[in-house]
Amino acid sequence: MPSEIVHLEGHIIDSLTLSKVLDMILREGGEYHIQNFVMGATRSDASHADIEISAPDAAALERILHSTQQHGVQRPTGEVHLEPAPANGVLPEGFYATTNLPTRIRLNGVWQAVENIEMDCAVVALPNKPPRCAPMHRVLKGDPVVVGDTGVHVTPVERRAPDDVFSFMGSEVSTERPKELVVTAIAQAMQEARAAKQRILFVGGPAILHTGAGRYLEAVIRAGWIDVLFAGNALATHDIERSLFGTSLGVETSTGNAVAHGHENHLRAINTIRACGSIRSAVEQGVLKNGIMHACITHNVQYVLAGSIRDDGPLPDVLTDAVQAQDAMRSHIPGIGVALMVATTLHSVATGNMLPASVRTLCVDSDPDTVIKLMDRGTHQAFGIVTDCEFFLKELAAHLPGANHDGIS
Amino acid sequence: MPSEIVHLEGHIIDSLTLSKVLDMILREGGEYHIQNFVMGATRSDASHADIEISAPDAAALERILHSTQQHGVQRPTGEVHLEPAPANGVLPEGFYATTNLPTRIRLNGVWQAVENIEMDCAVVALPNKPPRCAPMHRVLKGDPVVVGDTGVHVTPVERRAPDDVFSFMGSEVSTERPKELVVTAIAQAMQEARAAKQRILFVGGPAILHTGAGRYLEAVIRAGWIDVLFAGNALATHDIERSLFGTSLGVETSTGNAVAHGHENHLRAINTIRACGSIRSAVEQGVLKNGIMHACITHNVQYVLAGSIRDDGPLPDVLTDAVQAQDAMRSHIPGIGVALMVATTLHSVATGNMLPASVRTLCVDSDPDTVIKLMDRGTHQAFGIVTDCEFFLKELAAHLPGANHDGIS
Amino acid sequence: MPSEIVHLEGHIIDSLTLSKVLDMILREGGEYHIQNFVMGATRSDASHADIEISAPDAAALERILHSTQQHGVQRPTGEVHLEPAPANGVLPEGFYATTNLPTRIRLNGVWQAVENIEMDCAVVALPNKPPRCAPMHRVLKGDPVVVGDTGVHVTPVERRAPDDVFSFMGSEVSTERPKELVVTAIAQAMQEARAAKQRILFVGGPAILHTGAGRYLEAVIRAGWIDVLFAGNALATHDIERSLFGTSLGVETSTGNAVAHGHENHLRAINTIRACGSIRSAVEQGVLKNGIMHACITHNVQYVLAGSIRDDGPLPDVLTDAVQAQDAMRSHIPGIGVALMVATTLHSVATGNMLPASVRTLCVDSDPDTVIKLMDRGTHQAFGIVTDCEFFLKELAAHLPGANHDGIS
Amino acid sequence: MPSEIVHLEGHIIDSLTLSKVLDMILREGGEYHIQNFVMGATRSDASHADIEISAPDAAALERILHSTQQHGVQRPTGEVHLEPAPANGVLPEGFYATTNLPTRIRLNGVWQAVENIEMDCAVVALPNKPPRCAPMHRVLKGDPVVVGDTGVHVTPVERRAPDDVFSFMGSEVSTERPKELVVTAIAQAMQEARAAKQRILFVGGPAILHTGAGRYLEAVIRAGWIDVLFAGNALATHDIERSLFGTSLGVETSTGNAVAHGHENHLRAINTIRACGSIRSAVEQGVLKNGIMHACITHNVQYVLAGSIRDDGPLPDVLTDAVQAQDAMRSHIPGIGVALMVATTLHSVATGNMLPASVRTLCVDSDPDTVIKLMDRGTHQAFGIVTDCEFFLKELAAHLPGANHDGIS
Repeated sequence: MPSEIVHLEGHIIDSLTLSKVLDMILREGGEYHIQNFVMGATRSDASHADIEISAPDAAALERILHSTQQHGVQRPTGEVHLEPAPANGVLPEGFYATTNLPTRIRLNGVWQAVENIEMDCAVVALPNKPPRCAPMHRVLKGDPVVVGDTGVHVTPVERRAPDDVFSFMGSEVSTERPKELVVTAIAQAMQEARAAKQRILFVGGPAILHTGAGRYLEAVIRAGWIDVLFAGNALATHDIERSLFGTSLGVETSTGNAVAHGHENHLRAINTIRACGSIRSAVEQGVLKNGIMHACITHNVQYVLAGSIRDDGPLPDVLTDAVQAQDAMRSHIPGIGVALMVATTLHSVATGNMLPASVRTLCVDSDPDTVIKLMDRGTHQAFGIVTDCEFFLKELAAHLPGANHDGIS
Repeated sequence: MPSEIVHLEGHIIDSLTLSKVLDMILREGGEYHIQNFVMGATRSDASHADIEISAPDAAALERILHSTQQHGVQRPTGEVHLEPAPANGVLPEGFYATTNLPTRIRLNGVWQAVENIEMDCAVVALPNKPPRCAPMHRVLKGDPVVVGDTGVHVTPVERRAPDDVFSFMGSEVSTERPKELVVTAIAQAMQEARAAKQRILFVGGPAILHTGAGRYLEAVIRAGWIDVLFAGNALATHDIERSLFGTSLGVETSTGNAVAHGHENHLRAINTIRACGSIRSAVEQGVLKNGIMHACITHNVQYVLAGSIRDDGPLPDVLTDAVQAQDAMRSHIPGIGVALMVATTLHSVATGNMLPASVRTLCVDSDPDTVIKLMDRGTHQAFGIVTDCEFFLKELAAHLPGANHDGIS
Repeated sequence: MPSEIVHLEGHIIDSLTLSKVLDMILREGGEYHIQNFVMGATRSDASHADIEISAPDAAALERILHSTQQHGVQRPTGEVHLEPAPANGVLPEGFYATTNLPTRIRLNGVWQAVENIEMDCAVVALPNKPPRCAPMHRVLKGDPVVVGDTGVHVTPVERRAPDDVFSFMGSEVSTERPKELVVTAIAQAMQEARAAKQRILFVGGPAILHTGAGRYLEAVIRAGWIDVLFAGNALATHDIERSLFGTSLGVETSTGNAVAHGHENHLRAINTIRACGSIRSAVEQGVLKNGIMHACITHNVQYVLAGSIRDDGPLPDVLTDAVQAQDAMRSHIPGIGVALMVATTLHSVATGNMLPASVRTLCVDSDPDTVIKLMDRGTHQAFGIVTDCEFFLKELAAHLPGANHDGIS
Repeated sequence: MPSEIVHLEGHIIDSLTLSKVLDMILREGGEYHIQNFVMGATRSDASHADIEISAPDAAALERILHSTQQHGVQRPTGEVHLEPAPANGVLPEGFYATTNLPTRIRLNGVWQAVENIEMDCAVVALPNKPPRCAPMHRVLKGDPVVVGDTGVHVTPVERRAPDDVFSFMGSEVSTERPKELVVTAIAQAMQEARAAKQRILFVGGPAILHTGAGRYLEAVIRAGWIDVLFAGNALATHDIERSLFGTSLGVETSTGNAVAHGHENHLRAINTIRACGSIRSAVEQGVLKNGIMHACITHNVQYVLAGSIRDDGPLPDVLTDAVQAQDAMRSHIPGIGVALMVATTLHSVATGNMLPASVRTLCVDSDPDTVIKLMDRGTHQAFGIVTDCEFFLKELAAHLPGANHDGIS
């Protein structure tokens, strides 16, 4: 029965890492024998374990070593193995697929951190450059790509500190929790990010406009709390519709009444901006005078409007190519400390795919399915709350200095 | 082919009544021939139609006449037919089953209004008393019960006036609507009810407490906006748990943290009240000092706490017998002008079953299923919004004079 | 007080058209006076009405005429007004925005049908060509575009015939209905479409694979019941993952167990196809041997795989540009008689935007929100059922000749 | 700083028990020092730990000891402390509140198992009788009740064996899983229960009837797979309505069409049974000839129909008193090995409250909220699947010997 002795260390008890690793071994049909175990006696002490893993055959053993490696298990290891990409956008067989956890590779005898870590990518190690995470489509023929998991080490997420602003939130999705506390926590996290010179990302869907909450998001932007906005054609269109016509999907946001011609207003809004050439031009020509997009332009908030097949128009600023839009989003990720995702499944999951596990992520949706999907797809660090975006954003504006003023339109 | 000529009058075009009636005739396999039609030329004029309904056989014709009768169709009619109930709690075969619409019966040559109208009941016409709606279990042996629909006339709901506070709301269930407008509308409806000397009913579930919104409901009650509260053991228990221990389901409502022993606090709360004898006694003995139930007792708000098989304890005030609890609820219905149902499927549907169609009814739940179920079960007059009870109640308190003060605990 | 006399005819009572039109007039602040009304005496007779509409001012009157025009109201009308598009992809101000209902325009003294009708588009009338519906981005500078609604006539949807396969379904969204009946009805509708030489469109999401229902869809395709497939990168990827590795999102579809390396299998599946060049090449090279995409290729089913920002890879067949993908989808719409949308919000709404109201449309999703959204966005002809795609597709295969054989893998 | 040394043993690593205990200590502000730790070297070996817990003050230490005791931590302990109940239905202050885990108390120097364990109850230890779990309302004045947690020991749930039929299911709630595998697993669990002479409980809601799945449940009962049925008035009423009239909520289950008079059929069904005296009488008199309730009576399946305030009628068999209904349900719990809960929140949560953690429990609902609520309320052993009850029951019948025959009506 083939076996191998591996090493595991860190806060492996309270982070549940050891439990998960033992569970994986058993689920894969293997056996374990713990040879040395030094329990960290107090909270600040790390624990250490040497574990002999055995399996029915070599392939099963390799599977176990691969799975457990992604939770921090270290093999007595050599160098990473690199192979050239066989063609542009095609990876060598057996390529190492990344997680969103901090990752190092052992190359030329040195452990080197992988830059721009993102789940479901490859690791490219060009000579004389730091190794970096690369999505499949950006790999070029001949790029040296990590194959297998020898020489790769990931660092599991530490247990959340008891004084973290989100420590009171469990990982489960529930509608029955006090949400004002979550608002307080996210507002504090945003202030902590500011103090730490981190950037804040807002990802939003059009329900923000339909429910009349656009003015609250606008106030939060004008008060300087957002650095980057990821959205689609719909959010921008309905924001501009509201600015030009006072409606969203044809419903007057101030009265809730469907107005005559109203369902066409979003088309007329798009047509107006297309005639101007871009949202920025519309602002500069005085056509667009307020709203979320106006606030972004006048307050130097970067935005990526990613297209989708549901779009009317679309607005000229929309990146209609999905791969190009992903790359535009990727370019804004470094430096993000807090990500706030509100009322959009598509953009939340897309952004979640790109975020390192270290970004504090909050997902707000009225539908528990969105929150469940985000976590199912691997964004385990996200907290989800099931609530209404309108009231959430109203409360958030009220908790952020500068956003809670009479300027809410 | 048997046929009969019936009459229909009123705002039968804009209330969709005529369309529905013709549709029913066709669905049942019948044919119609409209013999006289006088269209109301303007909005204030009623329309009149004489319709000859024919059907393949007498039974089918009777079915059509029965169905359309419930939408206002009048047969050239004689008196109602009465039969004695064969036993206590048992109705004569063929009994007329009520809708929640205003209903008259023709008895002794006179059209008489049926009192306490409620869906799915029988009509009992005791000599020398006005006819009244009676639930099956309250009919006594020998009571004269209306059988068949000869001599019964219901008045369909009028089209809602364009200046009604809820006129902007469609009947569909949607999460994507501006909810602050709904809050404004319900607050105005409550003020209109007060001005019209109508009573206001609040029906609530325990999520009000779990989400930390108990203090807002308490403020609304203390400001005098609620006359009657329908709830279950859980709402009262978690309210008392919060008052005695600061938790709800063991979660500290001020911090969101699960506290040690916390999951037992609701049991200790119940035990404490059981030891006092009743909620009122607990208030009088100074054991219970604040909260929703305290506010009800100190502000003379009537309440019915109806038991269910999920209950722990229960509290001594809970009516554990479902039929007895229904009757207690029934006794509070007359005079209700506005019903507000928040975060409870069980109590909302139960209350909806008892309300006349004329009561302005708003149902608030984070789960669209609750709202859909309420309407599926016949409470067609209800408006539903899908949102969070915490933020809804916070906003409601802010919109009601006297409830938006610093007294919110 | 300005006024105008309009005409309305057809089955305007039982289709609710007259009721809606009168309601619109009142909601917009207008008044009506019905001058002539001829009621269709029996089900087969049309009704006719001349209605004088008056409004406080000319603008309000115009709004009313515009709204009611979209429900079939005819003004004593002249020719349509055409204006040239000011630039590529920009429409003239006041352009007429289409519905998804059959539409005619009056041009050169003749009523002409608008081709390729689709909601939220413009009408372009090039000389010597039939007028056609054009999405904004495909209008070229100088194209003659219909402006205003003079000379435009839409035909409202007729009441559904009582013998339609879907006649038992109401328009409401409910989880509490017998779903086997819906399966029977859609299977019959598909057979009717075949008999009428109409094409059948299937729109699907990746949950079909995650739940293990891929084999049922594959059997339906192999039995020849689908002509066109609209999906995204995810459905195709997880189908190919299942074919190559037996997993979907890393979960073994035959056992439900998460397998080692499994979460990477979709990446390896994409990489394999990228190395082959296309799905078709993979089939031809013998790499891809079964599954949904294999069935499409070997059975000449057209497919459009539309990209989104959530995509990994993507597969080489994916149209990553949203506008290009829309146009590819559009090119497959003519001739579609039945559209079946299963387990995808994004693709269902996108397709719904393009379908004429005459296409029989069924939307199946486990989340009521998807069904509600589809209807909120204007696809009123769709029926929705809230259920599981796995069991739905299993039942559907069992109801379609040729699909219910032992060949289900 | 007060401290105490406790002991923990068992599969405390792979069951996550140690991790949870250390987490609790930290969350409550305590510190730990692990003094002895013997790691079970292989899967079959238990681990042992002596842990010194310290806390800022005695009260905090007591809180920590109390919380961790519920996860198996053993204090160097004396006897349990007993106090008499001060009144009927009232517990002594500080009473020990039970979990649903196996529990022993140390009394007269002996560890004794607590009978009928159920969460949220008290432990009563009458002289010369085994200690038993007692709901609050059944405690009599003077009964000796366990107070505090000295001398109480609970046994945490073991990690599920890798060959358990449910081992592939995670604890998370997800709609995107292969559900046929779940059906296979529950069918196997039912067969295992039969082989082990355990009883099988079915808990169901009326949607089973509305969706047309009553015939599948009936077939499962007739094939002898159910020993006990918990339901409400609605399930029985709509079952009898279907049997007498062929409808459910007035919708013909064979066609999906709403039939004339149909919405009254449930009232007439109830009235018919009330006239007969009971469901059994209706069967014996030949009035009720098939359906779920008929199958229960003719196959000696025990049932509890618990009343609720939503009920019409109710049927004479319904226990309208909630406490009495709970006690009736309780009397059927001993010996249950498998509990299957389908399409009911109320009855599922009520039953979950009473089940020991050792009962294999599966909850099936189309609404994720029901499944989430069941687990939130403490029934952690339950597996939940989000799917349609109609297709689920059809598949289940197909997987159970004897239920998948032509006898399905």
